[in-house]
Amino acid sequence: MPSHFRRIVLASRPQQQATLDNFRLETVAVPELGEGQVLIKNHFLSLDPYMRVRMNAEKGYADPQALNETMIGGTVGTIVASKNPRYAVGEQVIGMLGWAEMGVSDGLLLRKLDTTHIPLSAYLGAVGMPGMTAWYGLTQIMQANEGETVLVSAASGAVGSVVGQLAKLRGCRAIGIAGGPEKCQYVREELGFDACIDYKANDWQEQLLAATPTGIDAIFENVGGEVFDACLLRMNPFGRIALCGMIAGYESAELPIKNARVLLTQRLSVRGFIISEHMDLWPQGLKELGSYVASGKIKFKESIAPDLAAAPEAFLGLLKGKNFGKQLVRLLD
Amino acid sequence: MPSHFRRIVLASRPQQQATLDNFRLETVAVPELGEGQVLIKNHFLSLDPYMRVRMNAEKGYADPQALNETMIGGTVGTIVASKNPRYAVGEQVIGMLGWAEMGVSDGLLLRKLDTTHIPLSAYLGAVGMPGMTAWYGLTQIMQANEGETVLVSAASGAVGSVVGQLAKLRGCRAIGIAGGPEKCQYVREELGFDACIDYKANDWQEQLLAATPTGIDAIFENVGGEVFDACLLRMNPFGRIALCGMIAGYESAELPIKNARVLLTQRLSVRGFIISEHMDLWPQGLKELGSYVASGKIKFKESIAPDLAAAPEAFLGLLKGKNFGKQLVRLLD
Repeated sequence: MPSHFRRIVLASRPQQQATLDNFRLETVAVPELGEGQVLIKNHFLSLDPYMRVRMNAEKGYADPQALNETMIGGTVGTIVASKNPRYAVGEQVIGMLGWAEMGVSDGLLLRKLDTTHIPLSAYLGAVGMPGMTAWYGLTQIMQANEGETVLVSAASGAVGSVVGQLAKLRGCRAIGIAGGPEKCQYVREELGFDACIDYKANDWQEQLLAATPTGIDAIFENVGGEVFDACLLRMNPFGRIALCGMIAGYESAELPIKNARVLLTQRLSVRGFIISEHMDLWPQGLKELGSYVASGKIKFKESIAPDLAAAPEAFLGLLKGKNFGKQLVRLLD
Repeated sequence: MPSHFRRIVLASRPQQQATLDNFRLETVAVPELGEGQVLIKNHFLSLDPYMRVRMNAEKGYADPQALNETMIGGTVGTIVASKNPRYAVGEQVIGMLGWAEMGVSDGLLLRKLDTTHIPLSAYLGAVGMPGMTAWYGLTQIMQANEGETVLVSAASGAVGSVVGQLAKLRGCRAIGIAGGPEKCQYVREELGFDACIDYKANDWQEQLLAATPTGIDAIFENVGGEVFDACLLRMNPFGRIALCGMIAGYESAELPIKNARVLLTQRLSVRGFIISEHMDLWPQGLKELGSYVASGKIKFKESIAPDLAAAPEAFLGLLKGKNFGKQLVRLLD
């Protein structure tokens, strides 16, 4: 049992673009467990765009990340010591222990994991928060029907890849948007989307037109900005938009929807959502996602940073779309 | 029985701002009725912002107004000749006979009116399309509950005035937005809104803050633009926005939603709608509206242009908010 572990704290708030200086790697002592507590050795940390929002001082839908405290984040790991009768040493759990190699929990927000058919890391991706985000947006907001055209931004990412595959399983036409030919090829050939638009290509607008000859019925939006505005102009009447993220605006002062008029002329519905507010549906969604992942009907790709010290750079890359698939950090084995 | 009547046709399409030159007054012969047709003498013409959208060449949610044809518009009038057994001379009807003193109809899109308790002109306002627009937005999209704060733009107008009064009848706090102290006073004192923000005043932003100490739960939006953007920043979580019009953008190239980020951070729902697509609910809504108007629980104000020839100028004024209450044109007596 180690006496110390490493963690990353928020050292300062970004002015606009987050930088490596905003993070600080520390070594801290493993605390002594109180009654009811467990000690967890983390195997993987999940990096997700929402963390960038929390780094700001303004209260968004959640409190800001506190300075000099462990960065927030989802983790999967193993119980290595327990003073809680509900958890035994050796059990695998998912929790929110943050950017840290180890962590202490009272067990309330932990969930035990079964890795018989689903790999541990997938619980941070397709069978976890990102997968649920995809499932909720598609089934509860976009309500995409068979034969409809569904557009998904950040389509090779942890959330987008699941949206498109779930849409295909429901008989929809799935069109992705991703950055670069390699990601687009993966989205089409591995994930089975019907088309994928390379937003980094000069002819992305032509690609969008060609991929949506009958318009778009529903959008799952992760990014916002210029490409989203162009997609709005392709919307069919009564289209639905699940607004999950606006990554393009996380580091800018404002990110307008320029073609807002289309919301009116096409009678669109737009709804922003945060998956943690819909816990009542997690059992239903995770059951479906788990079954699809176990049977190989939902595929996923991971981008794994080798070590906690590599987390800040991997996170900054994620905000710029440098990751390819779900961004994770490998921690202790 | 006159042998001729006057009408106004669309003479040309606006470049950006509509002008008087876009309209032409004509005198035409009263046509001979065919089998099944009726001849109607129109008493009032309704002027509504949607007409501006139809003047453009682009197809929006409906086909553009044809050049050299009678401008589209709702009318109330009296049957003066009938070759249709369903309609008798002397009956009062509402229809879409356009900017014209008389019109011919096959009766299919006419509805007979009872003016015992409701004045004829109200069927073009609070007990007609504008009232239904208000009713649908409030009850079906905003779903405002007792105690919630409801914000209504163009609050002294035909639609906004009904939204706020219906909201008050449901126990909501109703906050209006209108242009100038006279309209704001009317909205507060006559219509019974809790507060009204004068968007033409220098301190409109302070007024908005003062009027919404606990934020805004639902918006009925007719205008769009800078004021709407400021209101977005006052929205409470899970707020609902009924997007009915974006008058501020009808004569501009684009009208962005600048604070789109709030849709995500506050998990808002926005839905654009057009009341003519929800005819199934008209009987229910009109019954409620008619009862409130007959009992004086819903008040309304009218701005009446004296004659068909005055319609273009009244219409251009409507687009600039110069009207005070429902804009009508008086036609033949």
